[in-house]
Amino acid sequence: MPVIPINTPSATYNVTIAPNLLPTLHPRLRKLNPGRPFRPFIITSPNIWALWSKPFLASFKEPPTVLFHPAGERHKRMASVESLAQQLSTAGADRDALLLAFGGGVIGDITGFLAAIYMRGIRYVQIPTTLLAQVDSSIGGKTGVNLAAGKNLIGSFHHPQAVFADTDLLRTLPPAELRAGLQESIKAGVIYDARLFRYMEQNAEAILSASAPAKRNADTAALAKVVAASVRVKAEVVSQDEKESGLRMILNFGHTIGHAIEAATSYKQLLHGEAVAWGSIAALSLAVARNTIVEKDANRIVNLILRYGPLPTFKATAEELVALTARDKKNRSGIRSFVLPTAIGKVEIVHDVTEPELLAATQSMLTLMRTGT
Amino acid sequence: MPVIPINTPSATYNVTIAPNLLPTLHPRLRKLNPGRPFRPFIITSPNIWALWSKPFLASFKEPPTVLFHPAGERHKRMASVESLAQQLSTAGADRDALLLAFGGGVIGDITGFLAAIYMRGIRYVQIPTTLLAQVDSSIGGKTGVNLAAGKNLIGSFHHPQAVFADTDLLRTLPPAELRAGLQESIKAGVIYDARLFRYMEQNAEAILSASAPAKRNADTAALAKVVAASVRVKAEVVSQDEKESGLRMILNFGHTIGHAIEAATSYKQLLHGEAVAWGSIAALSLAVARNTIVEKDANRIVNLILRYGPLPTFKATAEELVALTARDKKNRSGIRSFVLPTAIGKVEIVHDVTEPELLAATQSMLTLMRTGT
Repeated sequence: MPVIPINTPSATYNVTIAPNLLPTLHPRLRKLNPGRPFRPFIITSPNIWALWSKPFLASFKEPPTVLFHPAGERHKRMASVESLAQQLSTAGADRDALLLAFGGGVIGDITGFLAAIYMRGIRYVQIPTTLLAQVDSSIGGKTGVNLAAGKNLIGSFHHPQAVFADTDLLRTLPPAELRAGLQESIKAGVIYDARLFRYMEQNAEAILSASAPAKRNADTAALAKVVAASVRVKAEVVSQDEKESGLRMILNFGHTIGHAIEAATSYKQLLHGEAVAWGSIAALSLAVARNTIVEKDANRIVNLILRYGPLPTFKATAEELVALTARDKKNRSGIRSFVLPTAIGKVEIVHDVTEPELLAATQSMLTLMRTGT
Repeated sequence: MPVIPINTPSATYNVTIAPNLLPTLHPRLRKLNPGRPFRPFIITSPNIWALWSKPFLASFKEPPTVLFHPAGERHKRMASVESLAQQLSTAGADRDALLLAFGGGVIGDITGFLAAIYMRGIRYVQIPTTLLAQVDSSIGGKTGVNLAAGKNLIGSFHHPQAVFADTDLLRTLPPAELRAGLQESIKAGVIYDARLFRYMEQNAEAILSASAPAKRNADTAALAKVVAASVRVKAEVVSQDEKESGLRMILNFGHTIGHAIEAATSYKQLLHGEAVAWGSIAALSLAVARNTIVEKDANRIVNLILRYGPLPTFKATAEELVALTARDKKNRSGIRSFVLPTAIGKVEIVHDVTEPELLAATQSMLTLMRTGT
């Protein structure tokens, strides 16, 4: 069972990846805070709870209070945080409360942010249920909500006490969410781990077979390998640069245009991983135009992204998308930073991307989307 | 000019206390971040800005963007933070933005919290305009907003880069606010500084004369002494215990019942310092009943609190108020902690206060309020 440590200046914790973790949750949680009061509160979505409450509660003698929050990016807002905080208070949560984020990225981000600001900070644990959350968003302490003006513009750095990624949960994941999550694993390969990239090239069918309504007993071994390798990339990067002053920025590959696409479609039409996939394709076009990467490698990456599709199309002009990147959190005093691959498994960060270059790259991605070439 | 340092594990900064600070603000702010982009945004209330914008802007070549937020505890809510964040984003604020909190406690708390969570944390400076903010809320990094369930239930620890307390600002303070702020100075004397307490006993008239519509040129020297001494108490306590694991709790003297009074009156009827004053009287009654303090000392404290009144009355029963203390942030796993004076300038923290004791003490405070004895 892979246990991957995260070591940052402000926190040390483990990501445990294994099947059948849920039924042993209670003793695992108790071990995190020996000798302290144990006052767990579950934050989850109605759908997840309907599917998985039984194994989740199996090891609890007294069932904890459950607070529901709908899944979906459009619910990741301040009003939801306030409502959850109010419910926590009514349920008697004090500074000894331990929040359990049981859901996908939205549940994880909002629970982490709630834990960061409830009574100026309480503890929480991530129990991610989607692939995206298991390989990316549950790890590293970034928490937050969206503004109308843009994604994750409000938030805190606040690490969980532990991450428990039960790979059995991926069996009930809708296939589109599995595919979208795998785009973040492709990203991990592109930016840091050429072996993971090759493994995903060579085992696409086995990896993708894990999820489907008809395949509740599907073999998740190949997928579990991808999860562990992706988590390792994130763990290493975050451990080296907790607050994104340098290396951690490479995790944003594909995210500048990706976030613009999500904003242009009001966070409703595409899954995060799908938007990042399109954003990666645009970034690759920029990298090829700048000669930071050879065309052959860029094509291999684009092909792998499309292999894990299909990616849904959307309506937006290059001008709109580029205008939306002006509000990116990574910009400092008007300068846009971009993560560009130099080879498979390696990237560089550039700070001098001009608006015409960015427009051309975005246009090239939109053309691929519309015409397939 | 007193410059009082705050040294905590997570931040080091100065509180500068002097008249006529506003007209030299720009060079002072520039010095805080040499070599970094300077992108200031002012958060203030319409009233304060109408009175003081001219000296505030005197040293700026380009006037910064100004965002308005109404004063008053009932506006210290998540919705206001979201609206300000949205305005910041629209105005182009990125991670190089520097927020300037120009106002009383509400402006300071909300700006500090906004700075804590905007793009996961940006810099800010406190320029407090009320006595309460100058001696207490601007210092120590506690930021936050209220929930319907209670005061400051949402927040972060996020220190300002500096605090500039211009004592000239106190000349336009409504007399009731000056008096309410002085209650926090009395608290500082009670818990930590017997000399400050005696100074306030012996110079009440001079201290209180500083504020009045007719006295724009009043002598603020006595008041400035009180401000500096109060800041020193807070600075020493916070520097020794940043996150309130021990010593810092003594700053909460009078606040348990004080917060309950504010909640019972929907944060509308009493100023914070006034509620704390009543809360202190209740805590003293508890301390006398427990023999932690001799009656003579307790009476001296009650008399000083009333000398800096009048304290407005309010409607609430002892039962209501005690029920509201059950949600206090300081409670851990159901145990209430209380700060009780043992002499003037000294307190102890007790954890075994029973409900009947608390009811009796609250009732005794209410009787004093209703009958004067």
